[in-house]
Order: sequence, then C-alpha cells, then structure tokens
Amino acid sequence: MLFDGILEGLLISEEDDGGDIALATDFYELTMAAAYYYSSCNQKDIKKNAIFEMFIRKLPANRSYLVATGLEQAVHFLMKIKFNDKHISYLKSLEAFKNVGQDFFEYIKRFKFTGTVWAVPEGTVLFPNEPIIRIEAPIIEAQIVETYILSTINFQSLIATKASRIVTAAKGKPIIEFGSRRAHGPQAGLLAARASYIGGCVGTSNALAGYKLGIPLFGTMAHSFIMSFEKEEEALKQFTKVFPSGFLLVDTYDSIAAVKKIIRLGIHTNGIRLDSGDLDYISTESRRLLDNAGYTGTKIMATGDLNEYIIRDLVDISAPIDSFGVGTELSTSRDDPAMNGVYKLVAVRIHHTLEAGKKKRIDDKISYKIKTSLGKKTYPGPKQIRRIIENDKIKKDVIVLEGEKEIPDGLGVPLLRKLFDKGNLLCRMPSIKEIQRYHLQQMDLLPSRFKKLDSTPGRFPVIHSEKLKAITQKFKPR
Amino acid sequence: MLFDGILEGLLISEEDDGGDIALATDFYELTMAAAYYYSSCNQKDIKKNAIFEMFIRKLPANRSYLVATGLEQAVHFLMKIKFNDKHISYLKSLEAFKNVGQDFFEYIKRFKFTGTVWAVPEGTVLFPNEPIIRIEAPIIEAQIVETYILSTINFQSLIATKASRIVTAAKGKPIIEFGSRRAHGPQAGLLAARASYIGGCVGTSNALAGYKLGIPLFGTMAHSFIMSFEKEEEALKQFTKVFPSGFLLVDTYDSIAAVKKIIRLGIHTNGIRLDSGDLDYISTESRRLLDNAGYTGTKIMATGDLNEYIIRDLVDISAPIDSFGVGTELSTSRDDPAMNGVYKLVAVRIHHTLEAGKKKRIDDKISYKIKTSLGKKTYPGPKQIRRIIENDKIKKDVIVLEGEKEIPDGLGVPLLRKLFDKGNLLCRMPSIKEIQRYHLQQMDLLPSRFKKLDSTPGRFPVIHSEKLKAITQKFKPR
Repeated sequence: MLFDGILEGLLISEEDDGGDIALATDFYELTMAAAYYYSSCNQKDIKKNAIFEMFIRKLPANRSYLVATGLEQAVHFLMKIKFNDKHISYLKSLEAFKNVGQDFFEYIKRFKFTGTVWAVPEGTVLFPNEPIIRIEAPIIEAQIVETYILSTINFQSLIATKASRIVTAAKGKPIIEFGSRRAHGPQAGLLAARASYIGGCVGTSNALAGYKLGIPLFGTMAHSFIMSFEKEEEALKQFTKVFPSGFLLVDTYDSIAAVKKIIRLGIHTNGIRLDSGDLDYISTESRRLLDNAGYTGTKIMATGDLNEYIIRDLVDISAPIDSFGVGTELSTSRDDPAMNGVYKLVAVRIHHTLEAGKKKRIDDKISYKIKTSLGKKTYPGPKQIRRIIENDKIKKDVIVLEGEKEIPDGLGVPLLRKLFDKGNLLCRMPSIKEIQRYHLQQMDLLPSRFKKLDSTPGRFPVIHSEKLKAITQKFKPR
Repeated sequence: MLFDGILEGLLISEEDDGGDIALATDFYELTMAAAYYYSSCNQKDIKKNAIFEMFIRKLPANRSYLVATGLEQAVHFLMKIKFNDKHISYLKSLEAFKNVGQDFFEYIKRFKFTGTVWAVPEGTVLFPNEPIIRIEAPIIEAQIVETYILSTINFQSLIATKASRIVTAAKGKPIIEFGSRRAHGPQAGLLAARASYIGGCVGTSNALAGYKLGIPLFGTMAHSFIMSFEKEEEALKQFTKVFPSGFLLVDTYDSIAAVKKIIRLGIHTNGIRLDSGDLDYISTESRRLLDNAGYTGTKIMATGDLNEYIIRDLVDISAPIDSFGVGTELSTSRDDPAMNGVYKLVAVRIHHTLEAGKKKRIDDKISYKIKTSLGKKTYPGPKQIRRIIENDKIKKDVIVLEGEKEIPDGLGVPLLRKLFDKGNLLCRMPSIKEIQRYHLQQMDLLPSRFKKLDSTPGRFPVIHSEKLKAITQKFKPR
C-alpha cells in the first residue's frame, strides 16, 4: 500500500480522477499559467524549469520551533491534479480568459505534474526560513501547485506544532484531540486530528480520523445524554450498561454530587470527565471520594477550553488528572491560528536546445532568484538543510546550496529527501504511527530552551553557508 | 435545482451516497447512539423525541453581532447522512463497541434523518444566546448530527462575521477574499470564500468557489511571475499581452520604480497591486504618477496582512486605494479564530402509546431541559426569536417559547423558519447572491452602535419572554 490511510474523498469526486482538487487553488495560479504558456518559457528551443521552496517566514506567537506536517496530502495532490472538461469549460467561460487561445486549454487538459520534489519527512522539527519542501518542475507546473501545497502544509504544521506544545506541557500525561466542532469545517476537523496525532496526542474524537487513518478514538458522553433522562443516576447507569469501559461526564448539574452518585450506585466506571469549574479542586475532591470508596482504578479526564498553559499549571500543582481532552484551542491553534508559510521562486534553470530534432542540450544555466520587498527578502537558490547533532541534541542547522561542496558529507544530516523524480513518487509514505514516532524522536533532539511555552529564544540555531551568503549579497534590487 | 452550487465532493466519495460524511463526527455521538438505543427511548411503548438548539454562547473578541452562515451545508448533511457497510464493520471492530449487539448495527444501517428543523436564514444578523437552528427528531438522530452541524455553522458564521466587519470598515470600497493558502486546509479555503461572499465581499481568489458556487473570481499575479523573468519590464509586458484587463503586482523589487516602468512602457493596465510597505505613501505616490501620465483609469488594489483596523485607517486618511484583498486575517478570523457555538438539549417530547397495534397516543408530554454547570447555564424549551423593528432598525429581539401566546403574531418578525418536516426539505435553498443581498439588508437594520470595530456594547438588544424566564427559574440543580 502506497499510503497508509490516504484522505481520499476529500475534494475528490465520484470520478476518482482527482475530482475538483485542481481548482482548489488561487485563480491567479491559472492566469499566470496562461501567461507563462505564452511567454518565452514555451518557446521550442528553451525549456524553463522553476525551483520553488516553501518555508515559514515567522513562527506563530510564542513558538520556538515548528513541526513540518501535511506532506502526505501534498503528495496526494501532486499525483492527482488533473483538469477535466468541465473545469476547462468553466475557465473558458470567464471574461478573464477571453484572450487565451485553444492551445493553452489543450495544454491544461493534458496537464500533469512531472517535477522533482525534495521535502523533509513529516514530523520534522524545523525553524523559520528552513525549506520544508522544494519543487523543481516546468514553471507552469511548479507554479500551479502553490496554493494547495501551502494550504495543506501550513494548516497541518500549525496544528502539529500546537499539539506538540500541549504534549510537552502535559509532561507525559496523555492528550486527546477533541476539537472537531470548532475546527474550520469538517475537513479541517479530520486534518486537525491527523496533525495532532503526529504532534504527540494519543488519539482523537474524530470518528473519520479513526476510520480513514487508524488513529485511536476516544469519547465520553455529552451533557445532552445526561439531560435526556429524568434523573442523572439513570443516565449514568444506562450508559455504563452498554459501555462498561466508558467515561462518565459528571458536571451537567454538580460534579461532586455526580461523583457521589456514581459511588452510591456502585458503578465501577473506567473514568470520569470533568468539563467545568475549578479543575484542581474538583479533581482533588473527586480523587479523594473515589479512593476512599475503593475506586482507585477510576481515571479522571479533564476538558473544557484547555490549552498548554492551563495544562502546565494543573500538572505543576499535581492536580490528580490522568488525561486531558483539548478541543477548540488545539483544532484552531486559537492563540495564533495561522502558519505563515510562503512558496517562493528561488531559481530558474534554463535548458537551451540547439538543432531542433537532434535535441542537443548546449546550456543548462541556473539563474538564482530573490525577492527584495521590504521585510520579505528571500534567500536564492535550491537549498538543503544540514543538521548537526552534538550530545544527542541539535547543535545547529546549516542551510547550504544543494550540492554545495564546502560542507563535507559527514558534516550534518541532510534533512530534505528526494520524494519525486520526474513526476514519479520514489518511496512509500510512512504510516501515521511511524510519523508520530519520528516526531517524538525529533523532540528528544530539541534542546530544552526551545520547548519553553511562553517565550521565544533570542535566536534560532540556524546559519547559512558562506557560499549562500555570498550569493545573496550579490543581489541588488532592480 | 434544489441547491445553487452545492458543495458536493467535499467528504463525499465516489458512491455519491453521502460518502463518509456520517463519520465526520465526534466518536461519542456514536457511542451515545448505542446507549440511547438500549435505553428506554427504544422501548416500544415510548417514543422519545429530543429538541436541540444551536446558539453562540459568547461572541469572538470585539464582535457585537454574528452572521449566521453554513446552513446549506448543514441541510446537505441532514439529507445525505448514511452509514454504509464499511463504516459499520469499522465500528464493530472497535473495542468500545464489543458489548453492542447486532440489532443496533442494523438500526444504524437503516439510519436516516427524519426530523423537523427550524433555522434562521443564512446571512441573518444575530446576538449571543439566540437559536440559529433547532432540531427535533428521535433522540439518536438529533444527537448524532451535532458535530457536523456545529462544525459547518461555527466556521462559516465565524468567517461571515469577520467579512462583514471588514466590509463595514471599507465604507463601500470592495473587499476580495484572498486567504485560501492560510485557510485551515483546502475545504476551509472554499468554505471561507463562501462565507466571505455572504458577509459582503465582492469575490474571492478561490477558483473552486467560482466553479462550484458561482462566486466572482479575482486574481492578479505572484511575485514569482515577475521573478521568473530576467527583467521586471518583460514580465509586466508578457502578462498584459495575455491579460490586458489584469492587475500588475508592483512590489517585487520596488513599488514606485515598477509604477514608473509601467508608465514608461505604455502599459495601460487595468490596475496595480501593492503588497508591502507603507500603503498610504505608496498608493498616494502611485496615484500621482499614474494620474500625471494620464492613467486615470488604472485602479490601485492593496493587499498584505490587511484586516478591518488597517483598512479603516487607510480609508479614514483617504489613501487612494480602490479595493482591498484580504487573506490570512479573513480566512482564519485571525484575531479570534473560534465561534463557540454549542448544541444543547432544550426539551424532550415523549409520546406514550397504549394498546400496541392500535397506536393510540395517550400522552404527548414535553419535558424542558436545562444545564446548570457553572457559567454554562442554558434556557429550556424550543424557542423562537421575534425581532422588533422600529424606524427601520432592530429595536429588540424577544426570545419566546415556540408557540407562545402572550406575544401577538403582529409583534415582531419570527426569525426561525421551518426547513424540514419529518425529514423532508420544505423549500428551495436560496442562491448565494440572494443570501448576500439578504445579509446586506440585515446590516441596514443593525443600529450603528453594533457596528463599532473595537468595542462591544454593554448589552445586546435581546430579552426573554416572561414565560421563558418563569420556566427557567423553576429549575434547580439536581
């Protein structure tokens, strides 16, 4: 199996031909495609390949690292992108495309991704300005995939990073993702469950994430279940009859009173869930009541607008809570809900071919590209990250030009790996459990100063190679 | 046509049978379903209907109203929800379901939504605690639909509300939604485009929103297009050749220099886009250069991390900007990315039937329900909102019990309308243009004190009827 739990059916229609995934993009990718098509890049004697890199310019507030996530959906997109006749008819019907000839639409109908892709494995811990994915392809292909790739990697990296922080705060106590109802739509709920699991959560409440991705499912009961019965006692008994290993929600009317009812009724429930009030006080009092009654195996789960800070405080004061369910704050990354990943042109590689018919390449020139807008400067050229580990911790990342010789092979682990060659996927994608395990190993490598929750380090352990700096400095605004 | 641009293909698989939409839910909805099934609600002589209402407990920061949006996707879900054999096999395979009998799985296989639904039309301006949607159905059905309905209405209402604020700030200048790359995944990008249009935006960059929903598409060009050419001039010329009515991005290297190049080259472009720097200064200087050269028809669009506050300031100082593109801040509702809608049981209606076989109803008892958790109290009973308009402005909303007699029919417009009866949709869903028009009319009715961007009014114009207050006060925690 190529994918372990691919997200088919998301923006994929009945035809299973990629559905409408190709149009899940910014309109300007399509107008630029036509403009590229009619510009020199399409001249028969010149083939222009573009090299784009995605990186995060600035981390969300208080973050000191990011967890690169969302690659599997990007890979899926690159394999599936296809424009069908209906899409093309729609584009032709638009006023903007009225000057665009039939030859472009025929090109778009044949369109598929034929490029080369390098990327860091999902779950990798990265810092700002480090490339997450690099795509080299004919310029139209490399351009047109921008929006979807940004969308899936930005969002999942955002949530995996948030999850990773919450897991750190809990110091080993399990975190469950409970945020589907506040996620940004049903698909976001599913993707948030995926990213949260990669970030170290033990499971999710999202049933589709269990079904599609094999993520362990957790759930308790809603207040409505309790309220639908005349008496709370009856609700608790009925639920336990069907789900003897379930968790009982106790705060519908009065948490402590409900715990006493559970004991009085002799319901040896697996656990209780606290969803409101002073969680330290209620968990302590509940634990005392339960232990005194011999319910020592009954676990306490806490929920209710939790985040990394509240969980850290509860753990620090040793509140007797065994696990935490985190909803809105996790599935929306509420304190800062955007990962500002950008996808920038770093080079153009031009193949000149002389003697039509004989296909002799006479020149393979790379032209480095840089943007100089105020505050939005980029580094040119295709890059690799070499991570230097010392005493089992990240010492520094050196960003080098791909193939740069000054850095001996032995120095540092290259983080970007080749995923696609000429449009063909080169390897099996890892399972979500493998990705999670890899991420947790990455966290072991991360020095503790980057794991602080409410401050950011003065600087990141990232340097650019001398060669890269020299090339960058040569650029002047035009 | 029942739907004007339905979002098929989103979580819908090739079988077109609702796909996996049924599992896009919290797992506890499914465990509760089984617990309800085996509790009294399934006894042959008692039929227990539940009445749930969704409402927003607390608005996001600085919001003084919300725009109820997302109903069409909720309706679609209610019509499509279905569990197939693969879903059922999956549920059976789970440890949690090991005590659940085959009869429940047979029930789930036959499951469809047969309830009655009341809702406010999409685009309605509401205040906290006002019901957006009310569902009455056999309790399992009413419960199981919770997560999906919350997810779609919470998110789209969040974005429509943000869009509405931004449109207000722009005082008539057009706003375009440009946020797909930072939205929470590809589906969120599409739904954000939809909600933004409802909230008053003139269009979107999301091509799928154009194709599926008929929303006007806008787009300019990316920095990469400019950078892919050796000279900026060449890029500008090439693009204009194919898209003479396009917009040219000017800030890749130096905005003012690029405007001068456009004039020198004689490119009579439709417009330019500014994406960085001091937008007031650059727009003023660009306008001066363009006007002096006779380019009075060339428009100026501004983009780049804009939000309602920045736009208000630019409009207030009369910066010569003709339109604004808003991305991340809109598509993620960045300053507060969660609409805390909840779905609460407000009543249970019990039909007792005597004399099996003869089906004689002897009792139709309604039992009001209320939650008393600290800070999470609810109002009981099925409710209606009666909106009282005076001098073409909302004077107040009176929340009454459905069917309450004290309020004469003439007093106030009932906002909730019946949408489904016994599982059948009663009406055509409005087109997205109709919804937008309705929302803009709603905004005309909203007193200006609720349109302030950075403060909230001390109180909302919402009162509960005496009868509702009396019933609420009778409840004591159990």
